[in-house]
Amino acid sequence: MTGAYGELETRFSRLNALREAGAVLHWDMATLMPSGGAEARGEQLAALDVTTHQMLADPKITELFDRAQSELPELGAWQRANLHEMRREWLHATAVPEHLVEALTRATRRCEMVWREARPASDFKQVQPHLQEVLDLTRQMGQAKAEALGCPLYDALLDQFEPGASSARIDEVFGELADWLPRVLPEVLEAQRAAPAPQRPEGPFPQAKQEQLGRQLMQAVGFDFGGGRLDVSLHPFCGGVPEDLRITTRYDEADFTSAIMGVLHETGHALYERGLPADWRRQPVGEARGMALHESQSLLIEMQACRSREFIAYMAPIAQETFGGSGPAWQPDNLYRLATQVEPGFIRVDADEVTYPAHVILRTRLERALLAGDMSLDELPGAWNDGMEELLGVRPPEDRLGCLQDIHWFDGAFGYFPTYTLGALAAAQLFQAAVAAHPEIPEQLERGDFATLLGWLRQNVHAQGSSGSTDEILQRATGKPLDPSVFQGHIRRRYLGD
Amino acid sequence: MTGAYGELETRFSRLNALREAGAVLHWDMATLMPSGGAEARGEQLAALDVTTHQMLADPKITELFDRAQSELPELGAWQRANLHEMRREWLHATAVPEHLVEALTRATRRCEMVWREARPASDFKQVQPHLQEVLDLTRQMGQAKAEALGCPLYDALLDQFEPGASSARIDEVFGELADWLPRVLPEVLEAQRAAPAPQRPEGPFPQAKQEQLGRQLMQAVGFDFGGGRLDVSLHPFCGGVPEDLRITTRYDEADFTSAIMGVLHETGHALYERGLPADWRRQPVGEARGMALHESQSLLIEMQACRSREFIAYMAPIAQETFGGSGPAWQPDNLYRLATQVEPGFIRVDADEVTYPAHVILRTRLERALLAGDMSLDELPGAWNDGMEELLGVRPPEDRLGCLQDIHWFDGAFGYFPTYTLGALAAAQLFQAAVAAHPEIPEQLERGDFATLLGWLRQNVHAQGSSGSTDEILQRATGKPLDPSVFQGHIRRRYLGD
Repeated sequence: MTGAYGELETRFSRLNALREAGAVLHWDMATLMPSGGAEARGEQLAALDVTTHQMLADPKITELFDRAQSELPELGAWQRANLHEMRREWLHATAVPEHLVEALTRATRRCEMVWREARPASDFKQVQPHLQEVLDLTRQMGQAKAEALGCPLYDALLDQFEPGASSARIDEVFGELADWLPRVLPEVLEAQRAAPAPQRPEGPFPQAKQEQLGRQLMQAVGFDFGGGRLDVSLHPFCGGVPEDLRITTRYDEADFTSAIMGVLHETGHALYERGLPADWRRQPVGEARGMALHESQSLLIEMQACRSREFIAYMAPIAQETFGGSGPAWQPDNLYRLATQVEPGFIRVDADEVTYPAHVILRTRLERALLAGDMSLDELPGAWNDGMEELLGVRPPEDRLGCLQDIHWFDGAFGYFPTYTLGALAAAQLFQAAVAAHPEIPEQLERGDFATLLGWLRQNVHAQGSSGSTDEILQRATGKPLDPSVFQGHIRRRYLGD
Repeated sequence: MTGAYGELETRFSRLNALREAGAVLHWDMATLMPSGGAEARGEQLAALDVTTHQMLADPKITELFDRAQSELPELGAWQRANLHEMRREWLHATAVPEHLVEALTRATRRCEMVWREARPASDFKQVQPHLQEVLDLTRQMGQAKAEALGCPLYDALLDQFEPGASSARIDEVFGELADWLPRVLPEVLEAQRAAPAPQRPEGPFPQAKQEQLGRQLMQAVGFDFGGGRLDVSLHPFCGGVPEDLRITTRYDEADFTSAIMGVLHETGHALYERGLPADWRRQPVGEARGMALHESQSLLIEMQACRSREFIAYMAPIAQETFGGSGPAWQPDNLYRLATQVEPGFIRVDADEVTYPAHVILRTRLERALLAGDMSLDELPGAWNDGMEELLGVRPPEDRLGCLQDIHWFDGAFGYFPTYTLGALAAAQLFQAAVAAHPEIPEQLERGDFATLLGWLRQNVHAQGSSGSTDEILQRATGKPLDPSVFQGHIRRRYLGD
């Protein structure tokens, strides 16, 4: 491809190769870099950031976009979608004046550092002035992006993580869930009380054995160790690049399920990256659509497939043999009850799939009110606790278990939280469509056979890249845009036997 | 620092941060990257190369150099030296037309691939046309660099690895060694035959134990694991950055000395990097002076210090305990004879310190003749074998053990070989000066105490960065420029008891 569009492809390809370099540096930093390397690593990552930003801010890019307009008639659908995504990325990069980007980087770095002390001390006042600074600067950045994108401020922040997401639609979806959750939760808890209480298998579960089990299950799900690794880090993530995916987890020798389910969750992310369209490698249209669809892939594997009665039946004897366990705690029925235990709690990352949306709805409400200026930071801790009481019926006794628990805001990630629940909804919808197309999937999962499910996901989600919006991809894959009723049906079926 | 010089510092700092990113990617590739990641890694490294090359080729740099000339009176000595090094680097980067750089990159990649098959098959003819292409393009590149630097072609190639090196001086030094070696070698071999034959301790030596011993000795020498790692790779190297040094080795469970001496050798490289002047981090003047001085630091630690009778006396009981060994083979005297065994052989990387220079002298002679057009590739295998016979009295029976053994030429690294022997000479000279300044060093080595030696090296070599030429640094540290007679004296003392 020559012409202005072709030149843009060349430039984005190099830009994304440099970002990949950054991804490897991040993985190394999180897994095995000695502490002495931190400052130098910061410089390396900053140099990559400055370089990629300069590549996007190059005035030549503006000129190429202008010239590419006249080439539109010659471009195919994917090329046009690619041009659209290039432009979106470029608007985000160039909308914000450089001094504001720098001020925000400095402010979030400071704020995050103070938060690391304030959280264990449960001292919101300590970090409040720093969070205020981050909030004010984020509002300015959101305003600049909103003007460039021609959308409301919160939508511009959402767009960074979930392109094309609209706050109006999120209001609608989250409003419905907020109404439904406090009604369904007591039913679920009651049904659970009526069943036998699950027993925890007794450990210890040596790290090496957990890793062995994790690898075996990853391979069953479809992870290829010729193109990836499993390592240890403080916070589990999936990094690397499609041909070389780096999954990490952490191990608790008293409980193997957290590491195993974490590994399976990250495997879902990895399979998405692996299945992105190779022909569009390093082009914006070839990237994952957004964080909602990304989370849908991890949650589909973890929540829909691997916490299903069928998969647990497959996993139970393998786990039992790996750890040499015995007794009724290793029965598939018991392990299934453990894997689907519901309990309202304070901490989002420990939440089950029923109560999780409440955590996200609360954060979304609060961050919107803060950004709109409808609420001050003084009011945040109280509003948080009130919201928890309203949505889940529990009131955090201290801010450590309340508004200080998540890094996101203190790190400047406003507009990110909604993608977790959008992902959970999309996961239910996609899994239902996959099973409708291939009713044999559940019995295959009982044999640890993911081939049909993975094949369907590859074709209907992974290979789509960013060729359409999230709703367009869902429409093509499931016959309709995002529909929260499917998730609600899943919860009722799994937890109430409906 | 503002002005044109200050702007150059800013640009080189970013340039070198990007190169550091590349160093981490290289380390990862050699140690733990899954095979599926190779192609993507190639793209990432290529993107970094293109980016850093563009930064140097930016016309704005020329303008900054011009303007910086008028700022010279305000600059300190290190700043002037820095400007000089920036200019040298810029000349190398911009002297060669881009199409030639690309052609050479493609040709070496192809040639190296063919060499990987031709070497085990001992089939020089198979790789000869590819090597011819590399040679022709290297000659063109050398010509372009020679014009830019104002020096002979071979000196321009040398300058890539050993700045300021002159072929005239190398002729002189290597000529003397080539004359001396065939005379001293029979004496050494005879003296060795007169002493008891060394015994090899019996293995196996488990990899984990070898690693444990390696780490312990690295720490004794002064390596800080808070700022570095030890891992496994096919070819041992020292990578990373001064605050985060990544040493690799390979293990042979039948012989622990190769891994241990390899680790100590790389530790010498690492200590040099670690001791570079922190105030000049990411500036050309703050980098290691060149490959000769770099090799001098690894050989000083390995050959001068760690193969000394004193250090072997320290190491022997530790190694014996690590491996639970017993018997006379573990006696320090025996291990010392093993560590200093001399034997003419075909393979450079297996050579002892007495015969090693012969391998380098041969390669230097041959690559000069090839580049000058005084010899054709048809003549290379024969000339190689004749040279081995002349210098070491052995004739390789096949090219696998002859001109196909080293990757360097097939990879385009003409002008690199001399630095190995220049390094060996400098190592002897620097060690002698350190011991002259601190006569207690040998007895300290007997206790595994490297503090005095390392302190002297830090001050006299490491902290000098590239503030002067190799000869200037040697002059300041030892009172004279490179003097091969010190190495000759070291060989006579160690092997002939003179």
